Amino acid sequence: MRRNIAIRLSYLGTAYHGWQIQKSEITVQETVKTALEKILKEPVVLTGCGRTDAGVHAEMYCADFKTNSAIPCDRLPFALNALLPGDIVATDACEVPQDFNSILSCRKKEYTYRILNSSFRNPFLKDRAYFYPSPLDITRLKKAVEKFVGTHDFAAVRSVGSNVKSTVRTVYYFDVEKNGDIISLRVCANGFLYNMARAMVGTVIYASIGKLEPEDISKILESGDRCLAGPTVPPHGLYLTKIWYDGAVGNMFK
Amino acid sequence: MRRNIAIRLSYLGTAYHGWQIQKSEITVQETVKTALEKILKEPVVLTGCGRTDAGVHAEMYCADFKTNSAIPCDRLPFALNALLPGDIVATDACEVPQDFNSILSCRKKEYTYRILNSSFRNPFLKDRAYFYPSPLDITRLKKAVEKFVGTHDFAAVRSVGSNVKSTVRTVYYFDVEKNGDIISLRVCANGFLYNMARAMVGTVIYASIGKLEPEDISKILESGDRCLAGPTVPPHGLYLTKIWYDGAVGNMFK
Repeated sequence: MRRNIAIRLSYLGTAYHGWQIQKSEITVQETVKTALEKILKEPVVLTGCGRTDAGVHAEMYCADFKTNSAIPCDRLPFALNALLPGDIVATDACEVPQDFNSILSCRKKEYTYRILNSSFRNPFLKDRAYFYPSPLDITRLKKAVEKFVGTHDFAAVRSVGSNVKSTVRTVYYFDVEKNGDIISLRVCANGFLYNMARAMVGTVIYASIGKLEPEDISKILESGDRCLAGPTVPPHGLYLTKIWYDGAVGNMFK
Repeated sequence: MRRNIAIRLSYLGTAYHGWQIQKSEITVQETVKTALEKILKEPVVLTGCGRTDAGVHAEMYCADFKTNSAIPCDRLPFALNALLPGDIVATDACEVPQDFNSILSCRKKEYTYRILNSSFRNPFLKDRAYFYPSPLDITRLKKAVEKFVGTHDFAAVRSVGSNVKSTVRTVYYFDVEKNGDIISLRVCANGFLYNMARAMVGTVIYASIGKLEPEDISKILESGDRCLAGPTVPPHGLYLTKIWYDGAVGNMFK
């Protein structure tokens, strides 16, 4: 029986057209798969814990693959890092049950969206935070994020284009933190629809600047109408910041 | 009389061949000068507060120029930022006395050198910290940095190539701070010789790993022999983090 291995990755998404392999663009999945195939000397099918769009970052990411190789798990991150570019790193690996699947076994995910709310850009946050120079009202922002917490149909805050059976998800928390001129929006859910995190952020920004009322958000969710919610904010402010699994693989992401 | 204007900048040095204009490479000085000339519609001579090498960053930087333009100082940063790339930003400007000179009027400078002392790279610190996977002994590091504090001849920790009258400088403080796996070395002096900050860091790293004793550093300084000190560490971990001026321009850098 081939071993099933899960690896912990993190990456800066700036140089990549997202996670998922595409015909003519460089992606994180292809970069990691190519490095693994060099190490394992066999074809690799690599499953990631989710599609991240072009420019989106991952502080934590899980991917898994089956292999005939006997390489010890504690050597694998070092072997991978010797081949990976500096903007992708592997920091852990462990053997997982045969039925483990990075996306299907994932219990919860946390995304953090970073906004630079300042009159001036910050060169150190280029491609790493959404520069939004108009002042955002934190009180309104906090009222707005609360409206998303709970089990709802999130059809109004997703982009069409992916086939999902249900658009109902549970948001466990959606927090606002202001640290100097950086506003961080952390949202945790049992699953995210396509562009859901970025559409929720666009909607709470609209609530913050008065283009809609925080109280409108429940009605917008009920309507299921994407046109009533705020815009999808740019990808480069978005980070996958935490993922939860049961068992041994869960310990890799503590 | 043409006004003399000082501007506050910050930049990520990764994409630039340092501050100073070069014939065939993109530099920060040329990028800012070109933007100023577009705004002011006149040739600009731009003086910076110091040469930073290729890959070195500046959280604070001062540059000055004389102009016939009547543009208000509070408009200048916005006008500049509309033309500058995202990795250089202007955040302030003020009129300064005719004899003000960004480099000659500078009282003190603080450089911070960031080391990622961890088994694994961090993709978010690529080009922003020196990745040094072997464990560094903080106690030895702290003993070593102390040896540089005070007024000394720093000829042993500079690279030749620049003409300076004296190699005597005063280091006011040289601190070690460990925050998770990031070690920050902050050094403040009334002036820095060419590559002095990076050669001092290379020397304290050598003291930290036992390639030399912290106690040897005073003798190395006395010898004036560059070969006895540690290596010049890479530029991408180095940040100009604070500069001090008298008068109104000093308030821009508080």
